[in-house]
Amino acid sequence: MTRGPWRRLAVVGVGLIGGSIARAVRARRFCETIVGVGRRRSALAPALAAGAIDLATDDLAEGVRGADLVVLCAPVGSLPGLVRAAWPHLGPGTLLTDAGSVKRGVVAAALACPPRPGVAFVGSHPMAGSEQSGFGASDPDLFQGRLALVTETGATDRDALAAATAFWEGLGSHVRTLSVDAHDRGVAVISHLVHLAAYGLVATADGDPLPLAARGFVDTTRVAASPETLWVDIFRENQAALDEALGRYREILDRWQTWIRQERWDALEAELGRAREIREKLG
Amino acid sequence: MTRGPWRRLAVVGVGLIGGSIARAVRARRFCETIVGVGRRRSALAPALAAGAIDLATDDLAEGVRGADLVVLCAPVGSLPGLVRAAWPHLGPGTLLTDAGSVKRGVVAAALACPPRPGVAFVGSHPMAGSEQSGFGASDPDLFQGRLALVTETGATDRDALAAATAFWEGLGSHVRTLSVDAHDRGVAVISHLVHLAAYGLVATADGDPLPLAARGFVDTTRVAASPETLWVDIFRENQAALDEALGRYREILDRWQTWIRQERWDALEAELGRAREIREKLG
Repeated sequence: MTRGPWRRLAVVGVGLIGGSIARAVRARRFCETIVGVGRRRSALAPALAAGAIDLATDDLAEGVRGADLVVLCAPVGSLPGLVRAAWPHLGPGTLLTDAGSVKRGVVAAALACPPRPGVAFVGSHPMAGSEQSGFGASDPDLFQGRLALVTETGATDRDALAAATAFWEGLGSHVRTLSVDAHDRGVAVISHLVHLAAYGLVATADGDPLPLAARGFVDTTRVAASPETLWVDIFRENQAALDEALGRYREILDRWQTWIRQERWDALEAELGRAREIREKLG
Repeated sequence: MTRGPWRRLAVVGVGLIGGSIARAVRARRFCETIVGVGRRRSALAPALAAGAIDLATDDLAEGVRGADLVVLCAPVGSLPGLVRAAWPHLGPGTLLTDAGSVKRGVVAAALACPPRPGVAFVGSHPMAGSEQSGFGASDPDLFQGRLALVTETGATDRDALAAATAFWEGLGSHVRTLSVDAHDRGVAVISHLVHLAAYGLVATADGDPLPLAARGFVDTTRVAASPETLWVDIFRENQAALDEALGRYREILDRWQTWIRQERWDALEAELGRAREIREKLG
């Protein structure tokens, strides 16, 4: 298993995340050659023109052939199919990883692929998105100082795990390794629920209150400017964990609403104080 | 009714908001004399030392006597009592206003005061807080470019309304005038619910998910670092409107949770898309 530096990187999906990976790898001279794979070659033209990728193709098999590192940066719902489609074309020594926000489906798809000597999959999730999208919003420093999550299963190759870790660390990220289940449940709360809650606040404010929006509202709902297609795709993939997270959130809001109606201000203040302490520690 | 510049300003409560008002007025040379009123004189020492106020007193009557502009910047629950206590000591030509986040109680208290010639009250709400508090966090440019809400009732003196508007505009704010009811219902959604929702997200994430917190979570929950004492005070004052706002938010989350369980992704995407469009317009 290659531990980097890599000779040839294939990035499948050259949007915000894939484009930022290509540009970050280029800026750090981690690879000789970067191949961009997209559904339409025309969509890859800006990345080619910017020098973020050296080669562009709409043929997945051709794009991943000869690569020793392949990163799938397509919408999360399409990742299992891409793993299956890419797998037969990966050569010995290739690390296949992804940048999806939900790990259950893509990891299961990789586990179900027939073993191939020297080919390994490790699920990754760089937590470094933004409410913007597309190559135009990409940034070679997007991963600098951010968290990257890497998942392991009982079947995960240790060298491949170390290689994936080294890759994200090379782009400036702090890496945490956790199980697929812990990942999907954790991000359901810390990211997916947070997006749904923010969309919900905007929907609630639609109408008369909206012209009163100040900095608190604007900051709190920033993530609600994110593309809904991408997020519904994530919610679909993480349906059960999101449902559970939303249930926990609603339980808390239900309890607080009861206390507001019953004027149990001390009880409310105690729970808000606990939340404030937790939040303060995040800086 | 004085339209400014004012001779003598009394600021009651010299914390984040009151301190910022004093410093903003001082920086712009809008007043000859600025009096700070606090429950303890020792608490006013930093404002005195910083030159934000010229005189410090813990005696409300003494503090407001001779002032032609009085701004109450104390916790919202204490405002009605402060209006009643200050009222008999205000001289002709004095504008009394406040900086409270809920207008119902303070406006009602002012309306119930016996008319005094040349003394007028206008409810104000500069939407320029932060999760910090205290004079140490004050900023002479806090109101620059922000929204300030000014309320009117059937009894509001037109000159006083114009004077209050001119005051906030003088500090750099954009002013909107609205009814007390529209104010309290609007801010219940755009500010009070948003704080409660953010505290709730932090409470939901407490435990395993918390170490996975990335920028989206940190931004969305920034307001949950606000002092809970201040916010429970606001929630208490705006109980009915907050209850209604929370009910609307929960209805939306309930509907979305049902759709997530029923896999009605198209319906969910349509409503998230509408929210995304609204949020994008806020910049």
